[in-house]
Amino acid sequence: MPATDVPFAKGHGTENDFVLLFDPEGRLELSAATVAALCDRHAGLGADGVLRVVRSAALEDGVAQAADAEWFMDYRNADGSTAQMCGNGTRVFAAYLAAAGLVPLPDGAAVPIGTRAGVKVVRRHGSSFVTDLGPWAVVGGADAAAAGRDAGVVVPGVPPGTAGAELPGLSVDLGNPHTVVALPDTDQLRAADLTAAPVVTPAPADGTNVEIVVPLHDATARIGHLAMRVHERGVGETRSCGTGVVAAAVAARVWGGNGAPSAWTVDVPGGRLGVTLPAGELLHGATAELAGPAVVGVRGVLDDLP
Amino acid sequence: MPATDVPFAKGHGTENDFVLLFDPEGRLELSAATVAALCDRHAGLGADGVLRVVRSAALEDGVAQAADAEWFMDYRNADGSTAQMCGNGTRVFAAYLAAAGLVPLPDGAAVPIGTRAGVKVVRRHGSSFVTDLGPWAVVGGADAAAAGRDAGVVVPGVPPGTAGAELPGLSVDLGNPHTVVALPDTDQLRAADLTAAPVVTPAPADGTNVEIVVPLHDATARIGHLAMRVHERGVGETRSCGTGVVAAAVAARVWGGNGAPSAWTVDVPGGRLGVTLPAGELLHGATAELAGPAVVGVRGVLDDLP
Repeated sequence: MPATDVPFAKGHGTENDFVLLFDPEGRLELSAATVAALCDRHAGLGADGVLRVVRSAALEDGVAQAADAEWFMDYRNADGSTAQMCGNGTRVFAAYLAAAGLVPLPDGAAVPIGTRAGVKVVRRHGSSFVTDLGPWAVVGGADAAAAGRDAGVVVPGVPPGTAGAELPGLSVDLGNPHTVVALPDTDQLRAADLTAAPVVTPAPADGTNVEIVVPLHDATARIGHLAMRVHERGVGETRSCGTGVVAAAVAARVWGGNGAPSAWTVDVPGGRLGVTLPAGELLHGATAELAGPAVVGVRGVLDDLP
Repeated sequence: MPATDVPFAKGHGTENDFVLLFDPEGRLELSAATVAALCDRHAGLGADGVLRVVRSAALEDGVAQAADAEWFMDYRNADGSTAQMCGNGTRVFAAYLAAAGLVPLPDGAAVPIGTRAGVKVVRRHGSSFVTDLGPWAVVGGADAAAAGRDAGVVVPGVPPGTAGAELPGLSVDLGNPHTVVALPDTDQLRAADLTAAPVVTPAPADGTNVEIVVPLHDATARIGHLAMRVHERGVGETRSCGTGVVAAAVAARVWGGNGAPSAWTVDVPGGRLGVTLPAGELLHGATAELAGPAVVGVRGVLDDLP
């Protein structure tokens, strides 16, 4: 059907930004070209991706979750490709449901959201939203944890003067793949060139997101603190990546060993996020809470889709 | 009055992009904060500026032009400040008038547009739009033209290895101030660091836009060809600057002398523009035609203004 008079919004979480399209009955034909045109930062509305707001029951990908989650987050990357999940997107999605009056979401309340990676529950705390992104796992298990690494990563620009040097990386699975690399200081974090994907060896078959992190806390801190930049596979460097922030906390806890904190503050270029991992087991877990802001800045109706 | 149900569009010319707001009777109270929120690339719609589409007769700044131009382009910078004019904006403004059916604009037809720098006429040629941005003048007159310079400019990053070296610059007035600097090759153009404003000596009281250019044509060409990057005062490096492109052509013609072309192609990071100067006098002129694309990508209605 012709896509006319489509309710939309624009929002962001830690500057990871989205065009939301309200399509409760799943009637929009949302081609890759339309998504790319909407996300075009000059001709379109400009965003890192599109979040289609659709009833789970109205979408083939969501119907199995309809009993648990009324609303389904149909997430598309800026290039139009379909993606499983988006951690920052879940907060913006929940903020939209609340702002549009689709779901009552007073402080402390939670809303289940259908995604291609299963139902995710988002809880509101004031202007912050907390999403359980779990489960997670250190891909290389105990051996990788003991070595602190299971991959070699070349990050152009760091360490200065040693072009081509391979740094140790730790692979973490959050439903999507991550490789986390520690750098010694924020000068190197700033100097890193993420215009192209860092080369990871052995090369993951489906690629990987790469997080470079610098620990900022001291050894006695009860809450860990990281500075992080991220290169998202198929996207490039972004201002924030929700699953990447959780992966960074998982890797940093492995590197810190059994005394390391379970709660982490992670500073990304777009802002600050919080991660809470279950105490205990360092190698895998069923939950990983990501907390952060979400803003819905503009709402309206598009005459038609580009 | 409350700003609800505001028709809007998003468009760009050589990647200089704008949020257009349709406010025929001039009723919107468009505060700097609202403009900045609309132009915010994460929370808002994201743009280099806002073009309010308002009847000249309905606006104090436009009423004197109402007899010559039905529609007035109320241009605001992304930070909310008011600006006189925007060359790329005039093309996008005309494309919007045509797309919204406000002005019939078949191929070859023209529309007068009121601006704070006077009425500008925009002519349509297929998907291209041509705006007369003149008048223009070489600020230093015959002396500056003979010397090829009237200012010294330090552009960090060029020439490589000679940090702090002063390059010759030529000042050109297009209603707003420009200083044009020639570089020998595109390697140096690429290497230039425009993250901060190049230092111009003597320093213009109100600042200046700085264009760095490389001639790409050979001496026998009938159409000159430049590659250009620009640092806009108060903005930073942009993908394109309409008056800057004209200033670059004016300066390059001065440097080429009496045999130099009057028609120029100028490649900017955001695309390609054409400039036509009147034949003859090199030091000043009453017209300067800027030709280039304009795209209106998305149209709709905003529930309210942020």
